[in-house]
Amino acid sequence: MDPVPLAGQIASIGMSRAALVVASNRGPLSFSLDERGDPVPSGSSGGLAGALHLVVAGSDAAWVACVMSEADRKAAAAGLMAAEGVQLVTVEPDPDTYRMAYDVVSNATLWYLHHLLFDLSRRPRLDRHWHEAWSAYRTFNALFAQAIDEVAARGATVLVQDYHLSLVPGLLASRRPDLDVVHFTHTPFADPATLRVLPVAARTELLDGLAAARRCGFHTERWAAAFRACCADSGIAPPPTFVSPLAPDAPLLTQRAGAPTVAAARAQLDAVVGGRKLVLRVDRVDPAKNQLRGFWAFDELLEREPSLRGEVVLVALAYPSRQSLPDYQAYAAEIEHTAAVVNERWGDGQWQPVILDVADDPDRSFAALTRYDVLLVNPIRDGLNLVAKEGPLVNQVDGVVALSQEAGSFEELRSAVVALNPYDVSGTAEALAHALAMDGAERARRAAELRRLVTARTPRDWLSDQLDLRG
Amino acid sequence: MDPVPLAGQIASIGMSRAALVVASNRGPLSFSLDERGDPVPSGSSGGLAGALHLVVAGSDAAWVACVMSEADRKAAAAGLMAAEGVQLVTVEPDPDTYRMAYDVVSNATLWYLHHLLFDLSRRPRLDRHWHEAWSAYRTFNALFAQAIDEVAARGATVLVQDYHLSLVPGLLASRRPDLDVVHFTHTPFADPATLRVLPVAARTELLDGLAAARRCGFHTERWAAAFRACCADSGIAPPPTFVSPLAPDAPLLTQRAGAPTVAAARAQLDAVVGGRKLVLRVDRVDPAKNQLRGFWAFDELLEREPSLRGEVVLVALAYPSRQSLPDYQAYAAEIEHTAAVVNERWGDGQWQPVILDVADDPDRSFAALTRYDVLLVNPIRDGLNLVAKEGPLVNQVDGVVALSQEAGSFEELRSAVVALNPYDVSGTAEALAHALAMDGAERARRAAELRRLVTARTPRDWLSDQLDLRG
Repeated sequence: MDPVPLAGQIASIGMSRAALVVASNRGPLSFSLDERGDPVPSGSSGGLAGALHLVVAGSDAAWVACVMSEADRKAAAAGLMAAEGVQLVTVEPDPDTYRMAYDVVSNATLWYLHHLLFDLSRRPRLDRHWHEAWSAYRTFNALFAQAIDEVAARGATVLVQDYHLSLVPGLLASRRPDLDVVHFTHTPFADPATLRVLPVAARTELLDGLAAARRCGFHTERWAAAFRACCADSGIAPPPTFVSPLAPDAPLLTQRAGAPTVAAARAQLDAVVGGRKLVLRVDRVDPAKNQLRGFWAFDELLEREPSLRGEVVLVALAYPSRQSLPDYQAYAAEIEHTAAVVNERWGDGQWQPVILDVADDPDRSFAALTRYDVLLVNPIRDGLNLVAKEGPLVNQVDGVVALSQEAGSFEELRSAVVALNPYDVSGTAEALAHALAMDGAERARRAAELRRLVTARTPRDWLSDQLDLRG
Repeated sequence: MDPVPLAGQIASIGMSRAALVVASNRGPLSFSLDERGDPVPSGSSGGLAGALHLVVAGSDAAWVACVMSEADRKAAAAGLMAAEGVQLVTVEPDPDTYRMAYDVVSNATLWYLHHLLFDLSRRPRLDRHWHEAWSAYRTFNALFAQAIDEVAARGATVLVQDYHLSLVPGLLASRRPDLDVVHFTHTPFADPATLRVLPVAARTELLDGLAAARRCGFHTERWAAAFRACCADSGIAPPPTFVSPLAPDAPLLTQRAGAPTVAAARAQLDAVVGGRKLVLRVDRVDPAKNQLRGFWAFDELLEREPSLRGEVVLVALAYPSRQSLPDYQAYAAEIEHTAAVVNERWGDGQWQPVILDVADDPDRSFAALTRYDVLLVNPIRDGLNLVAKEGPLVNQVDGVVALSQEAGSFEELRSAVVALNPYDVSGTAEALAHALAMDGAERARRAAELRRLVTARTPRDWLSDQLDLRG
């Protein structure tokens, strides 16, 4: 491993050498501070960490994750970070290193490239501040590589997760050639023309970093092919790739949807929606999720179909995300503004067409998923989109899924969803009209097919694919 | 040809059936109105129309072009439109059709897609207005197809130019299978992931339209490959493609650069620049040209190299373009603002670091091209970029060309330019520093090599490639 300056600390609880190591930016639990400044577990820990937790809990795996906040730091110090049956190793970069690696490179550069989010005539501005941030990203990855090196037994399998840790396989390759390093990307992967935005040295370092893995995994063949094309465009031999879409844990979801707190949230929702049709969306606030065009499509639907006015509600559950990035703050403001425009245009004293709720409330989300007539999932690009799989599992009224062709899960679900082009506002309005007009028999047929497709795989299958247990 | 409603008129001067027909949005001459409201030829008629004029003047070709403005309309009526030795056929769409076809689809959709200019989380908004505009684009193309049908002799060769006329080959195919239709694209071509932004029906219509040509031409293999990949992504068999970079007319340019009006402009420039080094850029105001990052790179250069302060001037000649598009107005304002920021930061009473001039003054441009020490050409994406070829032909001081890897002309000129990644502000600053520090021998070697590369082809070669005269 090339010497890289390390700006941070590594800590582990009950360290012993592990034959299976998982590495991800976010750990099994995340924390916030209560009013006394003490760390308490916070609501959700994100889809990826949740899925990882499901599959590694109770194994002898070690989990290398990052201390992300003051609350996390206090929780780690108090021994609260470790989850059941997991040996946790925390990586704690200094705050500047973390901000540059996480905000500037991971989220405001790589996430943007993989999701086609840059307004390229203006952004990114790859100036000397950005180049410093790239160095910090390398340092951040080196901290993880060092922690993995310390905890991994000889010949261990290491499952490196996602775009925050693209350089880890490369940083481990020379130091620990005994390790079986697998990298799994949960986002889409940029096409060559888009990845060329990166300075050539950074692009080469990124691809070399990933290509040093024994295998690289993706949620769909499209992203795997894009990765191989990027390697070819840079003259880098790609490693073997594999495709393994993540799946929800059906028994766990069903159980959660039956909780009394969910029933209470459902009663509240029923009181608001009444006998109207419910179009639902559940997403993080993120430009990739395409909330704006969802509202515009709903607006066009109401314009074209007067019979729907007063008879349908769009409930948009949009929970906050990455609020340290100005773009995300701006996008959140645009969401609020656009919802208000639609309500102003069509609403009356009896009917509010769009109900936007920006609270992070999993009970409310579950309740809404049980009740939707149409689930609108229209990202401009999405690695997988787990909500499109979770909805059909818990929905109780044979709700229809209107799904973007640019979501990774579209490949698996295409036979049972109403497809849409996320850029095509008119086409999205048509998809909503079609889904809302569908008769009961067709809804039931599609709902059954969706459940069959979604339950065909489990989180354990996804883990097995990474471990290559299926031959 | 499918029946398409025609909203416009076709007129020709001395119509006779022609064995060679050229079709382009813009005609050989463009006009403005003088103070009495009479049409007078206006300054430049654009690179493409100029090149076409060079190669068809004096032939028996017919040229089908659009009446674009009130001034054009008056000029056409007065018989002023026809250029020497060209049989002009004008297409005059009604103003609404033209606005939707030209502004909304050609310039604000297809140009944006081919140049990666959309801020995709917000734009385009493909709503019912856009779908109406797409119909207008079809109508506009059908007007051209009808005009070509009327003027083309049996078995004639038809050279259809650029993204405004993508549907023309398809619209001619069934009506006139006798014609040898060639389409040439002067822009880059979008990659499949980007072209998927279009509604599937429009995308298919666009690619089918182009694929109906006998052959499709591009300035570089990269754009040809992107077109073929888009066809493959849509399940469409691509037509044969060919690569034929346009070249400047060296004798004509040399002659123009020697004009007395150019000498006068040169004297003015010399008075301003004095003995300082001159970094020059000459572009239309266009987000694809990347003026903003050029200023930021110059700013970073001055920050890193104190010895250059007071010793170098960036002259940015940025002539107005597409001012009917709000995005272009916004970009022009950002250019002015950013230049002012750099001047505010570094300038003093004796030295203004950035001299921004937004007048459309060809004499001034020629004068500056004779004098640059470094020509900065940093588009984020460019079909060819003719300025990168014109500069070395007229420059008198062995000026260095710093050229974007994303310009089509980079393929031809790479051995003699300083390459840059247009997104990499720091890298662009380094390229400028390297170019400015180059010794005289190296400058002379590169300048000679550039002249050799640029004069290796002529506009006639480009025409011959379209006519397939070279076997």
